[in-house]
Amino acid sequence: MTDPVTAATEPPADPEVPDVRALGARLSNWGRWGADDERGTTNLITPARIVEAAKLVRTGEVFDLGIPLDSDGPQPGGFRVNPIRLMSENGQEQELPGGLTWADDYVFMPLQAGSQYDALSHIHYDGRLYNGHPSRDVTSKGAQRCGIHTQANGITGRGVLLDIAGLNGVDWLPGGHLISPADLEEAERAHGVTVGPGDILLLRTGWWRKFTSDRDATAFMDTEPGLGLACAEWLRDRDVAVVGADNHAIEVVPGENKAGMFELHMVLIRDMGVTLAEILDLEALAASCAADGVYEFLYAGSPLKFTRAVGSPINPLAIK
Amino acid sequence: MTDPVTAATEPPADPEVPDVRALGARLSNWGRWGADDERGTTNLITPARIVEAAKLVRTGEVFDLGIPLDSDGPQPGGFRVNPIRLMSENGQEQELPGGLTWADDYVFMPLQAGSQYDALSHIHYDGRLYNGHPSRDVTSKGAQRCGIHTQANGITGRGVLLDIAGLNGVDWLPGGHLISPADLEEAERAHGVTVGPGDILLLRTGWWRKFTSDRDATAFMDTEPGLGLACAEWLRDRDVAVVGADNHAIEVVPGENKAGMFELHMVLIRDMGVTLAEILDLEALAASCAADGVYEFLYAGSPLKFTRAVGSPINPLAIK
Amino acid sequence: MTDPVTAATEPPADPEVPDVRALGARLSNWGRWGADDERGTTNLITPARIVEAAKLVRTGEVFDLGIPLDSDGPQPGGFRVNPIRLMSENGQEQELPGGLTWADDYVFMPLQAGSQYDALSHIHYDGRLYNGHPSRDVTSKGAQRCGIHTQANGITGRGVLLDIAGLNGVDWLPGGHLISPADLEEAERAHGVTVGPGDILLLRTGWWRKFTSDRDATAFMDTEPGLGLACAEWLRDRDVAVVGADNHAIEVVPGENKAGMFELHMVLIRDMGVTLAEILDLEALAASCAADGVYEFLYAGSPLKFTRAVGSPINPLAIK
Amino acid sequence: MTDPVTAATEPPADPEVPDVRALGARLSNWGRWGADDERGTTNLITPARIVEAAKLVRTGEVFDLGIPLDSDGPQPGGFRVNPIRLMSENGQEQELPGGLTWADDYVFMPLQAGSQYDALSHIHYDGRLYNGHPSRDVTSKGAQRCGIHTQANGITGRGVLLDIAGLNGVDWLPGGHLISPADLEEAERAHGVTVGPGDILLLRTGWWRKFTSDRDATAFMDTEPGLGLACAEWLRDRDVAVVGADNHAIEVVPGENKAGMFELHMVLIRDMGVTLAEILDLEALAASCAADGVYEFLYAGSPLKFTRAVGSPINPLAIK
Repeated sequence: MTDPVTAATEPPADPEVPDVRALGARLSNWGRWGADDERGTTNLITPARIVEAAKLVRTGEVFDLGIPLDSDGPQPGGFRVNPIRLMSENGQEQELPGGLTWADDYVFMPLQAGSQYDALSHIHYDGRLYNGHPSRDVTSKGAQRCGIHTQANGITGRGVLLDIAGLNGVDWLPGGHLISPADLEEAERAHGVTVGPGDILLLRTGWWRKFTSDRDATAFMDTEPGLGLACAEWLRDRDVAVVGADNHAIEVVPGENKAGMFELHMVLIRDMGVTLAEILDLEALAASCAADGVYEFLYAGSPLKFTRAVGSPINPLAIK
Repeated sequence: MTDPVTAATEPPADPEVPDVRALGARLSNWGRWGADDERGTTNLITPARIVEAAKLVRTGEVFDLGIPLDSDGPQPGGFRVNPIRLMSENGQEQELPGGLTWADDYVFMPLQAGSQYDALSHIHYDGRLYNGHPSRDVTSKGAQRCGIHTQANGITGRGVLLDIAGLNGVDWLPGGHLISPADLEEAERAHGVTVGPGDILLLRTGWWRKFTSDRDATAFMDTEPGLGLACAEWLRDRDVAVVGADNHAIEVVPGENKAGMFELHMVLIRDMGVTLAEILDLEALAASCAADGVYEFLYAGSPLKFTRAVGSPINPLAIK
Repeated sequence: MTDPVTAATEPPADPEVPDVRALGARLSNWGRWGADDERGTTNLITPARIVEAAKLVRTGEVFDLGIPLDSDGPQPGGFRVNPIRLMSENGQEQELPGGLTWADDYVFMPLQAGSQYDALSHIHYDGRLYNGHPSRDVTSKGAQRCGIHTQANGITGRGVLLDIAGLNGVDWLPGGHLISPADLEEAERAHGVTVGPGDILLLRTGWWRKFTSDRDATAFMDTEPGLGLACAEWLRDRDVAVVGADNHAIEVVPGENKAGMFELHMVLIRDMGVTLAEILDLEALAASCAADGVYEFLYAGSPLKFTRAVGSPINPLAIK
Repeated sequence: MTDPVTAATEPPADPEVPDVRALGARLSNWGRWGADDERGTTNLITPARIVEAAKLVRTGEVFDLGIPLDSDGPQPGGFRVNPIRLMSENGQEQELPGGLTWADDYVFMPLQAGSQYDALSHIHYDGRLYNGHPSRDVTSKGAQRCGIHTQANGITGRGVLLDIAGLNGVDWLPGGHLISPADLEEAERAHGVTVGPGDILLLRTGWWRKFTSDRDATAFMDTEPGLGLACAEWLRDRDVAVVGADNHAIEVVPGENKAGMFELHMVLIRDMGVTLAEILDLEALAASCAADGVYEFLYAGSPLKFTRAVGSPINPLAIK
């Protein structure tokens, strides 16, 4: 997501736009998996569903959905920078037994600099995290509740791609383009696939393709095509486990409510407990799906087990 | 692996121990996948083998094999430190539109601080990397050849666990304990499993369990139980794609040849092009395998796509 | 200072030991330089005193008081690590116009890893910083009040060395050895020097010399010889501007009050507003002073201008 | 300096421009302070000159010449980023004996991100550093010769400001504006000051003022007003110890020789062994000098003692 700190002062609420707190309350998953739950909708990925998902492996083709982690990434600087990797050893100037030489490297990076999961502790409001955990549990030492390490045993299951850009016949949808539930259902029909409980839903907007075309990090972060608030209810009805996309925030930016910001994040993460996967590269996967007409696959994308972190870099695999 | 820099002066070679250069030349995979190949034995993980591996998913149980990434890790300091994660935002002192609050974090870490893949550019000798690429291709800017990003589209396939510690009825094998091909074959017989082409072979020595018992990072790095040099030929005969273990270097430390160091690394990585997965937590997986008698599974463990890096942190999943 | 987090539960207060809150209230400098002041006793270093201090330069000898910043430093790991410096360029693999080659490096470090100033925002209690500023002004973004940048225009003035170890005829005083006001006055007499308003007082305990002898970082941080609580009043009477030492916390560790910790820090920093300079190397300076009998000099040691930081690495110069 | 990597292909040499190698050979200080010397012209700052410099302290006014170290600095990203400072503790969520609370912070930064010294190991050509030390002594582990730590015992002495922008009656000279020896001498006459042996010469071009006006980091780094190649000889004649400026590279950018880059760096650092101080804030000092007509002062600006580093952040003090 772009830097909330730069946000302007609040205009009056738009009566046409759902109130985020009312929407969140209506769609809430708090308590659904117990008062202590920290994982949210990834609980929907049951063993039985994983067994079914594995059956989707038919050709053995693998697609890696992570973007490269290096200084050419989509962070324009400011609240996040691109990863900085430095060599501590490069094999030169070594005199080791037996003539061994070796190399080693370090990285300094924001955990959400590139392809990433948002932990459920990443977004909060009104003093509460997902499942009612107090926001003050996110301290200078990290997330005492809902850290990304609580998702470490996942995330694998049935993946479904909805290629909204492809469906519209464009390389990418424009910044600010809102995707509606009707768009999602049209994609389902076109792709011959139905999104259901426990699915990892991947949305292609073309926004990453735009970045690889123009390398304009500021433009990548300033706006984007993405889901509108009405999609929250649709995702709740379908009981989706994870939502991923090739943009930086899943949702349309700027959002519908000019007096708010990242309101779909507020509902999905804090009220519904949905893990988001952002800044994915879906280009090769989408091309394959278009070629063979199969838009479902086994998804295997674990977070790194950073204790109490509010996010993790990822490189998920889609296996067809 | 422990810091090669601390190595002592060279004693004479032991005539009983294979010469690492002769062994490497005999087992070499250079040229096997073309003169430009940078991936080595992960080429053995073919689509057909992935399809077969997915059929091993029968119960939907998932085991995450990464260790926690935090300041309590197994690095004693020196050439590598444990990951240092710091919050850049914790949701406090924010006044954002709509009452949104958010948290974000950064990490500084050696890419091989915890559970990790060694890139094929990690280890070299006599001026050459895997496949004859010159060692000078590993520069202060990283690995121009055989960077970990060349493995980004993997690594998923058939995983096999050989629980050598369990077979010996101990929580962990002692430091310096050498595992032989005969030990591997005894484990195969006991577990009712056969290691074959393209497999991801995971070896449990108990060394990680020892660390979680005594939290002695220096002891974890100073010695370890692990494979002897004779296992290189066995791994070549079986055409294993990846070797992983719960110790820090796969191989026995100290090694057989007192005049050398990390000689199995030299052969496996530089001559055979085998990707290694180190410092895994195999405890829960081993307990499950012991309980149901099934020692094979779908393994899905992608590296992060760090461009030109010589390693990557990982959190692989074993799916049964 | 050592990690407060490891502190044990509280024993009852010792009636012989001053109550830190009563002591702090009595010695408080709050309001002395205005309600908005963020600099404390460095206000005592007036232009007139700087002019006088410059007259102490008689031989042109210079002593640098910073310790080396590298991986061999006194941090045992845990809450602080030693600085990690990595090359981003080393001049190799470059093809630049005119044959230029160049090198560049990065560092990752705790700002208080080595020789350092504590900012007045480093230590607080009962919800207040120095001068009554609220502790909540120190946020995840840094010190909104009393950041080290507020000291950037200093710190230069008259330096005075009191060599307590030398006076006792030992290489170093033992850990836990308490230095009293009587010790300070004995040193003044022996050295023929009087500590006065606006002075930068440097105390040699030998603790750094011990570290360079045994390289035992854990021992360096676990205990130390240093000032007792009674010295707070002495420092207030003399109106010292800055107190520096060759140990890690100026004060004796463990402290006099077994139910508290770093209580002299609490009084000096939070109540009196005294800037502390820790982990200095005073060996060469002390040898010079012993040789020529002159224990006063011009001190010039600016902090780096880290905005809102709670400390800064330093390399102060003593010019005789 | 700007990123040499982005430099274009070489046009033919300009016959009007001095040949950098001939110039360097003619002005070389190699061997002048012994074959092992690593410090170059800072050797010119003798004790006697320091005693004289201290006499320049007349009013006790202090000017800190470092720029703020934070995310708003002049690095546009790419080969260097601005410093990233993160809190590890902010005093919240602590329960320590006696009610102590404390804060601590870390920084990740290029050592040359802001106000800085170039170590003599920063720039080389034709395989040689200053004094003939081989360039290969700068390895992935740092500068084995001419590291910044060799300057740790300095740098203090007579400072002289030449305010070239002020003399021209402009807030800043334009990018690409070349300063000649005649300009330097005109400034000397106007300011009533003469630059001599062992001096720390500070040049004000106004370039930092421009940055604080427009906050355009890319513009700050792309070009700048600065010294032409002819000034090398002038600096050698005067036997200046250190040259500092308020721009990023001392020298005019783009340089005179379109086929080269940073050629004055090549001569000053590698051939003459002159330490450079870059990106200084000279605004307040210049205003004071203009007001009282005194352009000389005591300069005290030590580098941090980073072992084997090729540069160091600084915050020098000018004391009048």
